[in-house]
Amino acid sequence: MLALVLDGVPRLVHDHPRPARAPGEARVRVRLAGVCDTDLQLARGYMGYRGVLGHEFVGEVTECDDPRWRGRRVVADINAGCGFCADCATRNGHHCPTRTVVGILGRDGALAEELVVPDRCLVAVPDGVPDERAVFAEPLAAAVHVLDALAPGTASEGPVVVLGDGKLGLLIALALRAAGMSVVVVGRHAHKLAIARAAGAEVLLESEAPGELKGVPVVVEATGSEGGLARALGLLRPRGTLVLKTTVAGPLSVDLSPVVIHELRVVGSRCGNMARAIELLAEGRVDPTPLVAARYPLARADEALARAATKGTLKVLVEG
Amino acid sequence: MLALVLDGVPRLVHDHPRPARAPGEARVRVRLAGVCDTDLQLARGYMGYRGVLGHEFVGEVTECDDPRWRGRRVVADINAGCGFCADCATRNGHHCPTRTVVGILGRDGALAEELVVPDRCLVAVPDGVPDERAVFAEPLAAAVHVLDALAPGTASEGPVVVLGDGKLGLLIALALRAAGMSVVVVGRHAHKLAIARAAGAEVLLESEAPGELKGVPVVVEATGSEGGLARALGLLRPRGTLVLKTTVAGPLSVDLSPVVIHELRVVGSRCGNMARAIELLAEGRVDPTPLVAARYPLARADEALARAATKGTLKVLVEG
Repeated sequence: MLALVLDGVPRLVHDHPRPARAPGEARVRVRLAGVCDTDLQLARGYMGYRGVLGHEFVGEVTECDDPRWRGRRVVADINAGCGFCADCATRNGHHCPTRTVVGILGRDGALAEELVVPDRCLVAVPDGVPDERAVFAEPLAAAVHVLDALAPGTASEGPVVVLGDGKLGLLIALALRAAGMSVVVVGRHAHKLAIARAAGAEVLLESEAPGELKGVPVVVEATGSEGGLARALGLLRPRGTLVLKTTVAGPLSVDLSPVVIHELRVVGSRCGNMARAIELLAEGRVDPTPLVAARYPLARADEALARAATKGTLKVLVEG
Repeated sequence: MLALVLDGVPRLVHDHPRPARAPGEARVRVRLAGVCDTDLQLARGYMGYRGVLGHEFVGEVTECDDPRWRGRRVVADINAGCGFCADCATRNGHHCPTRTVVGILGRDGALAEELVVPDRCLVAVPDGVPDERAVFAEPLAAAVHVLDALAPGTASEGPVVVLGDGKLGLLIALALRAAGMSVVVVGRHAHKLAIARAAGAEVLLESEAPGELKGVPVVVEATGSEGGLARALGLLRPRGTLVLKTTVAGPLSVDLSPVVIHELRVVGSRCGNMARAIELLAEGRVDPTPLVAARYPLARADEALARAATKGTLKVLVEG
């Protein structure tokens, strides 16, 4: 089958073997996939991943032990836990020590004609949610998951500042707005910030971010840069919360003394709940389609990846 | 009066002016003071502090508006808040934006014949607590404050690992043991680790820290080093808590991707509750005296500071 395979460098492969389906797994024909910054980092060597790229997708189940899934349009939790460890038994397996992660860790991804995922990871997509929205379920779930990092009542104590107007920063802004929060997005691109503003967020160009933006209870760091981290620590009020959303491979230089002096909380936040994201999309409370920058057919997935790597590009989609 | 004054470099000054006492402040004759690593950092330029050094002390009130304090043996919260802001009104003023901090920020310290502190910062020392124990109230309060950074129930989920067998690391180990917690201290000096072991902690030499020490729920970083921070992040289980106890001036190089991938919480922790520390000392639940390495008279406070800066030295006390 056709697939975008990372093997040192990402290459479009025309005769990649169809994935084998194990019991308890569903074979999914990909309808639409998205390119994430993590894909770009993986292509640069992050995690040492080898295999088919892509972990944002909506598809159709073509083969499955449970006949009720067959023919259904689905998205999937990309974390495929063992199903038996403490994390899988009591939580969602997102921290299962032997998990595979679609397109990231030990499991082929979605920039291909098809992929296999465990049945238990599947989430059905209601008819009212078109592919172009459903394909955002994975990053939107990660965005909504920011809420889980906040102590109860935090939202009422001031605006949440989101640093970064990239794909993830904007989705976080939309998700927090959907939760009724007051949000300020600090970014570098007026046309991207306009997407957050349309959802009711206050927006500021980084170059103009004024001094009065200080002493806030929550900052979400979605730039993945040293500068963003330092800025975030400087914006928080004592005992405030910094939510770290962006994995950056390799060391950063950072002065952590404000964390001690102001007794800040820094909380890492990764993947979220896919069903919650689909619900937000189904209820029309988040519309991610303004983020779509370009669509490519799978046969040009390599170009799609290159386009996504172009500075300033928002979401690039790949049609299965 | 005699005082150890930091003015670019620390100097013993014989004719330093006696501090002026404002209404609501108490004049305290210092009986015994301690040297802290923060004093050494201040002497190297941290915070740009100028003034009398020293923030660990026990003394006797000689002058005070409220006659009930006169003649009493006291310790004091070193954070002198304005008394009126939100932090002072609803908490302890430790994050009051206009606070002074004894011997650290805008207020002369305790390595002197006397100092002044607000009445509201005073905590009486019961007769049963000798000076040599009471002088540890400030760092012990900071050590016990680690407990406030932990989510409820954390203690039952595994041992708390303390990185560092310096003064603060050991006091944290003693405080956590007094709270009934299972504690593992990782350090570099057998004779220091012996102090933690005597209080019931498990101890490990850093060079021998074995692989099975992994996946723990809580790590307290008290080395203040890049290596300690990296080690701490590597020891934690997913969703674990890293308590940062040591302020390090200037940037560190650190890979924060484990914070995101494993959704860790990093919580800064600074000063604690002095009354709680005095209570622990009065009840005999913590005995810090094994940490005393040397005592100097105030007239040799400069030597005391130099001795404290000698690698491997535990607590150096200065007699008023």
